[in-house]
Order: sequence, then structure tokens, then C-alpha cells
Amino acid sequence: MVKVPGMKRYEQLAAEISAQIHAGVLRPGDRVPSVRKTSVARAISPGTVLQAYGLLEDRGEIHTRPRSGYYVSAHWHGLPEEPAISRPPKNTTTVNVSSLVFEVLDAAKSKNIVPLGSAFPSPLLFPMEKLARSLSTSMRRLDPWITVANLAPGSIELRRQIARNYLESGFAVPTAEVIVTSGALEALNLCLMAVTRPGDVVAIESPAFYASLQAIERMGLKAVEIPTDPREGVNLAALAAALDKHDIKACWFMTNFQNPLGSLMPDASKRALVELLTKHDVPLIEDDVYAELYFGSERPKPAKAFDRKGIVMHCSSFSKCLAPGYRVGWVAAGRYAQAVEQLKLSTTLSASVPAQVAIADYLKHGGYQHHLRTLRHALAVQQNSLLQAVATHFPKATRLTRPRGGYFVWVELPPKVDVLKLHRLALEQNISIAPGPMFSAQRKFHHCIRLNYGHPWSARMEGAVEKLGELVERKKG
Amino acid sequence: MVKVPGMKRYEQLAAEISAQIHAGVLRPGDRVPSVRKTSVARAISPGTVLQAYGLLEDRGEIHTRPRSGYYVSAHWHGLPEEPAISRPPKNTTTVNVSSLVFEVLDAAKSKNIVPLGSAFPSPLLFPMEKLARSLSTSMRRLDPWITVANLAPGSIELRRQIARNYLESGFAVPTAEVIVTSGALEALNLCLMAVTRPGDVVAIESPAFYASLQAIERMGLKAVEIPTDPREGVNLAALAAALDKHDIKACWFMTNFQNPLGSLMPDASKRALVELLTKHDVPLIEDDVYAELYFGSERPKPAKAFDRKGIVMHCSSFSKCLAPGYRVGWVAAGRYAQAVEQLKLSTTLSASVPAQVAIADYLKHGGYQHHLRTLRHALAVQQNSLLQAVATHFPKATRLTRPRGGYFVWVELPPKVDVLKLHRLALEQNISIAPGPMFSAQRKFHHCIRLNYGHPWSARMEGAVEKLGELVERKKG
Repeated sequence: MVKVPGMKRYEQLAAEISAQIHAGVLRPGDRVPSVRKTSVARAISPGTVLQAYGLLEDRGEIHTRPRSGYYVSAHWHGLPEEPAISRPPKNTTTVNVSSLVFEVLDAAKSKNIVPLGSAFPSPLLFPMEKLARSLSTSMRRLDPWITVANLAPGSIELRRQIARNYLESGFAVPTAEVIVTSGALEALNLCLMAVTRPGDVVAIESPAFYASLQAIERMGLKAVEIPTDPREGVNLAALAAALDKHDIKACWFMTNFQNPLGSLMPDASKRALVELLTKHDVPLIEDDVYAELYFGSERPKPAKAFDRKGIVMHCSSFSKCLAPGYRVGWVAAGRYAQAVEQLKLSTTLSASVPAQVAIADYLKHGGYQHHLRTLRHALAVQQNSLLQAVATHFPKATRLTRPRGGYFVWVELPPKVDVLKLHRLALEQNISIAPGPMFSAQRKFHHCIRLNYGHPWSARMEGAVEKLGELVERKKG
Repeated sequence: MVKVPGMKRYEQLAAEISAQIHAGVLRPGDRVPSVRKTSVARAISPGTVLQAYGLLEDRGEIHTRPRSGYYVSAHWHGLPEEPAISRPPKNTTTVNVSSLVFEVLDAAKSKNIVPLGSAFPSPLLFPMEKLARSLSTSMRRLDPWITVANLAPGSIELRRQIARNYLESGFAVPTAEVIVTSGALEALNLCLMAVTRPGDVVAIESPAFYASLQAIERMGLKAVEIPTDPREGVNLAALAAALDKHDIKACWFMTNFQNPLGSLMPDASKRALVELLTKHDVPLIEDDVYAELYFGSERPKPAKAFDRKGIVMHCSSFSKCLAPGYRVGWVAAGRYAQAVEQLKLSTTLSASVPAQVAIADYLKHGGYQHHLRTLRHALAVQQNSLLQAVATHFPKATRLTRPRGGYFVWVELPPKVDVLKLHRLALEQNISIAPGPMFSAQRKFHHCIRLNYGHPWSARMEGAVEKLGELVERKKG
């Protein structure tokens, strides 16, 4: 094997095999050449081959069968096309979606429902016992004064760990900028509060995470929806045009594995986004809760990594990657840190101390990186199962994203399907879905749904997708 | 002793001794007749006498000296007069107090400061170790699905316990009405959000808890301040006049041990308040976080106990009486329960699960009633020490409340004292105080301060009050 400069040998091998898969040389279900054969054929060590196959496995491109070898996953082949970029209206709109969101969330709460519409991954994927141990240990030796000293901005120990994680991602964020919140949702809401007043215009993606829509509705703001590509995220040319046309006071975007699309902005776009917003002096509220759930070889950078002027408020949490229910998130709020801290103090005072100290302890001693690797692998494998099931059971005109991380896919159904009706029919069969109109200021995307693959795959899930496919087939007109 | 109908013997005895103290027959420092003598003289059992003395001790009227007997406390004698009822402007006002509040809170954060200005009692008064045990036990046996199932409105087990506590206070609140929040502060803010829109008028006490002022400022509302009596709370005649004059959309009141006055509305006033507001169809946001910290014989009822139409949103928490830093509060939101629950879901999703299940477990097994008795006793004794110190060290023209619960007194200084200057001078001496203007929409009460007696009394505290007295003496003109 001829060594490519700047690439490690195993990365090079992985890239070559991936190219063969994408070109259709290796097809879904095909056996990948064995480790021994490949090692001999390419004159590289078996360890390097294993590393390459591990990387492809993490990305969900291949999978192992016990005592049999590696096989090409259905991930990239035989799948429906991906959806096209969205085309939202260019004017600003008032938002009217909250009641629909509550209806859908409420309907999906029961344990008997197949959770394809859920917003959460399975809690069984998280190290709940290890966290409980960290909780016990850290609370037993807690200085009682911490309960007073750890009001907003939060536990200094936890904030230091968060700052250190930024450093490991290759950029520095001062601990002073980090404010611990009750989950990322609170961080996002506080940021929006800090930089807007009623009547202001906020730019969001299209489709957008429904909590941003609810916040805009609740605070009496207006939305301008920016066309968003299912692969590469928000369209910068469209954003630039919107910035010229409207007096936009803030952007609320998800740069990594956007909810619901799963799109991932390339680094160059993130850099350009920050430059554009810096030029217009518009703050970016960056929702980055899924970044740790990448299937590639490294954590995608946030836009915050390219911020020189403190305009990016980077919001994230431990709810999706470590500790669901603990409600510990944070924001690195740049030049708005003091304003956000004061809002936190006067609205909810501080995040729960036991949850903060437990997570700080776990990050130090619990084996976070090991857990994350296991979690990412599980999600990649589950994505593969869901994509394959949709490809098998849904009508031909379906379009389907293939995100490189997170736990959602976005499905565009034939245009005649009304997903609000589909949602009701599916619920009758004990299946939840997240209908597209939840993700739009004016309840568009009436023929799109978001499906969750955050739960271990099972015959019940497969059956639910098959059932859904039948319902779609019947409604497609 | 002639038995008074409707009163238990020990209550009757306590009332008689209390009357003698109030009439000056027994003076501060006097020895109270011994248990044995009183038992013989009145022909009642020693146990009954001990019960009566225990009650008086809980109220801070008498105290024990080891191996010596019971003595009259300085509580009600030789103290400065109580302040008169407040006289706020009758018009509505915009609120401008947030920056002052943050400045004061920030200055009081250091551990080296004598915390007379603190908003919190000493964390050493709470059963942190027992809570940590409840945390360990309940998290070790936690069903992981709870983390999803316990989103807003919160842990069903905890909500049941809260509903049961209402029942024990003598009135029923359905569990469905109870929403768990991140502390009472979040509950109060969500309630205000649920019933107002920018520009609306909200009635508050005068002086008022600063968080209500900050909320009004943040949400673009207007305040109308209602005259408030240091003993009996908000003046109902003045409130009735304000309801006629202004289009009031909500009231935010503290009926029990108001912060900062310590006032306690009599039951009759609470009933009349609810009737008045029901007539005007105006919701009451009732902040009731101090009720468990009573020094009398039983928990004072909230206004919620007299609510027939669901207009009272009763907000409370475990932060002041059990678990500081856990950030677990709740609201029983009456007819607004669904609106508040939806706001909770879309702003912070849910309270921290570990904190919720730990408190639910502690309430069942931890000995809550025992802890509360110890806590109340400590606070009553500390109040006594603070009142005595202020009486000793402050100038004659000082006026001083004597609350029957909570951990704050309100001090009216000679009119020429500027407490914002006093605050700065005190900080230079490492003493914090809470200046009156923090508690007023337009920064009135410039010669009043709130002092905290939630910390074990010590020579350092005594010295700080003496020092404060000197500063006041120097500034009184």
C-alpha cells in the first residue's frame, strides 16, 4: 500500500474501503475481505487493518457478525435519495406551533408506545450505575457551604472540566465564561432572553428544533427561517441575504447533527458563518448537544471554535451523551456571559448541586471516553437498522437523510401524505412519530417526519417501521 | 388551673406565661417558675408543664440554661418599637432594581463576610448527610426509564408526598395540580409568565421580595405596591382600592413570614384576600417558602387553603427547610396547572431527577418532622440573640420587627441614614447587610435594612452587630 502523506495508514485503508462501498463495488450484505487476507495483500499489520475496520464500524459502514467477519451495512446503499434543501418563506413570521408540540410530546409519553417519535435515546444506553456511585461519593464528602457557594454560575470544579474539554477539542474557553444551567434547554432560552426583546427577529433553521420555535412564540419574537441543507446545514448565501433584508438580532442554529435533519456543517462553513455574523454584529446561539454522538473519527468542532469576538454562545449538556434526567447543561456565553449569569440567578438561581458534583466526579473517574465510544457504536448500528428498515418498507418516492451522528433521521414522504393524520393513525397502532409541522414556524413540512434510532433495534421496532410504511403507502394518494 | 374550652392544657399554660412576659411581670433574664413548682401549684402534670415550656422555647420567648432552668428571653422586651405600615405610591411604576440586587448579592458571596445580608440560612442547619444517604439509596435502585418518565410535571412519588403534606395541613390539593420545579424561584417565575403579558400590572407587597421585582422588570410588566404591615402583611383595604383603580392581572404575595418584613397574615385575612381576588378574578401567586419555619405551635395555613376556584398558585420549595442546593420546589397551580406545566416543559424541561428522588425518599424515611423541630428551635434562639444585639447596639430611634418565623428581621434606622452608603461601609468591615432599596420598585426604604439570623450566633456575629450600630450612630446625622 502506497502511503498517502498526512493520513495514517489505517485511515487511508478505511477511506479506500469506504470508497469501494460508495462506488457499489462492495454492496450491502457483502463480506469485507478478512483481516488476515487484507494484511497479507497490502503488506500492513493485522492491527492496522483492525483499526481501519473499527473506524468503518464506528461510522456504521460495516458491521461484524460473531465468528463470521465483517459485512457491508446497508448504510449507504439501496437507500432512498436524500431530501433536497428546504425552501422556507423569505419574510419573517409569527410562530404558532407550541400547542402541536405539547400534543405530540404528551402522546409519546407512554412506555407501551414504540418510540420512533421520541426526543430521547434509550436510558439503557447510559452508565446510570456508575453515575449513582459518583453521586454517592461526591455527596458524602461535600462541604455544606458548596450549596451556597455554587449558585450561578455553578460548580467551579464542573466548570473547569467543561473548560478543559474545550481545550481538548483544540480551542480555549475561559472558565469564567461557562455558566452551568438546568440542561441545554435552559441555556438556550437564557441566551435568547439575553439578546432579544419582544418584537425582535431571530434567524432559525428550516426545519428547526421545536424548542427554538416555542421560545420565539413565548417571548413574542419573530422568526425568519433560513434554507437548510440535509447534509451541510444552514445555507450561508441565504443567511447573508436575510441579514441584509431583516434586522436580525440573533441566530439560533445547530451546527452539528441538527435536530431534526441530522445535518453537519463543514468546518469551512462554520468559520464563514462566524465571520458573517461578526461582520453584522449578530450573536449566534449555538445548540451543540449532539456533537459527542459522532460516527466519524473525531468530534466535529463547534462554530465557537472559530469565534474571535465572543459573539457565539455555545450551549450544550450532558443529557444526551451521559446523564439523562440529571438536567445539567451549560453555556460558554462569550461577551454575553454576565448577562446570562444574571438571568440564571434571577430565574432559577442555580443548577442542582448533587447533579453537578456527580457529573464532575464522573468526568474525572468514571471512564467517560469509554462510555462515549460504546454509545456511538450502538447509535451507528441502530441507525443502520432503521435506514435499512425504512428503505425496505416505505414507498419508493420516500427521501431519507443519513446523518453522521446523533439519533434522528428525517424522512420526506410522498407529498400527498398528511403526517398529522399519519401521526394519529400511528398512535392508534402504539407507534409514535414526530410530524414535520412541529419543526416549522408555520407548521410546514406536512409530508415529513423525524424518526428516532436512539433505542436498541428489535423485532418490535422493525414491525413498527413496516406498519408505518403500510400506513404511508395507503395515504400516498 | 381552670380548663379553657378548645385549648389544650399546655397551650393554655403557655398562653398565660406569655401574657405575663408581654405584660412585663416576667422580664428578660428572669427565671421562669420551675417545672416542679408550677406542676404542684397548678395541679397539672410535669409533662404538661414541660410541653408548655417547650412551646414557649420554640417561639423564642424563653430559653433553657443547662442545669439551671428556664429564663425569659429578650425577645419581646426592651426591644425597639416595631416599624409602621409602609406607604408606597398609589400609581403603577416601572421597576429598576435588578442591577442593585446583583451588586449586593455578589458582594455577600465571600465566606469571610459576616452574613447578616445573606438570603440563606447556614447550610450547617440541614441534614446533608441523611439526604446524601437518601440520594445513594434511591439512585442505586432507580429504574432508568424514570429519567424519561419524570419530565415535567415531575416525580410522581414526590408529587404524591407534596399532596399528602397539603392534606396534613388540613386541605386537599390534587396531585395533578402539583408541578415540580427547580426551586420555588422557578415556580414563581413560571406562574407570573403564565398569567401576564408585557405591559400588564402586577400587585406586590411594599417592601417586596426582590425576585418579584426582578421578574417584573425582566418581563416588561408594571408594579403597583400595596401597603404592607410588618405584623399582618398586605393591607386588604389598600389592595381593594388598587384593584378598583388599576387593571391588575396578578398578585405576588408572601402570606407567611414575608421576605423582608417577616409579617404573617392572620387566617381571617388570608380568607378575605382569596375572596377579594376571586371576586375580581385575579390570580394570586403565593410565595410560601418560609411557612415550615414557624415558631408557634403549628404551621400557618397558606391562602391556598381558602381557595375554592383554583385562583391561587401556591409556590414553595425544600431549599429553605430541608435541602439547600438541591433546587427542588413546586407549585400547586390551581386552574393554571396546565399552562405552568407547558411553560416548565419548554423552558427547563424538568427538575433534576436525583434531587427529586432523594427528597421523596427522605420525606418517607429521613425523619423530616424531627429535623424541622430542631431547625425551628435553632432559628427561634438565633432570632432572640439578634434582636437583643440590635436592641443593645443600635441607636434609640431604630424600629425592629419581631417575626414569628423565618430568619429575617427588618430594621428601620433613623431617617437620615443612607443604607446604600452603610452597605459599602459595612462591607469594608467584612459585614454584609441587605439594604432596603433592594426591596422596592423605585429603590425606596433608603433607611431600612434586612438582617439574617439564619446562622448560629457567635461572638463574631455580636461584634458585627455592634460595629453596624456604631456605623449607624455615626451616620444618623
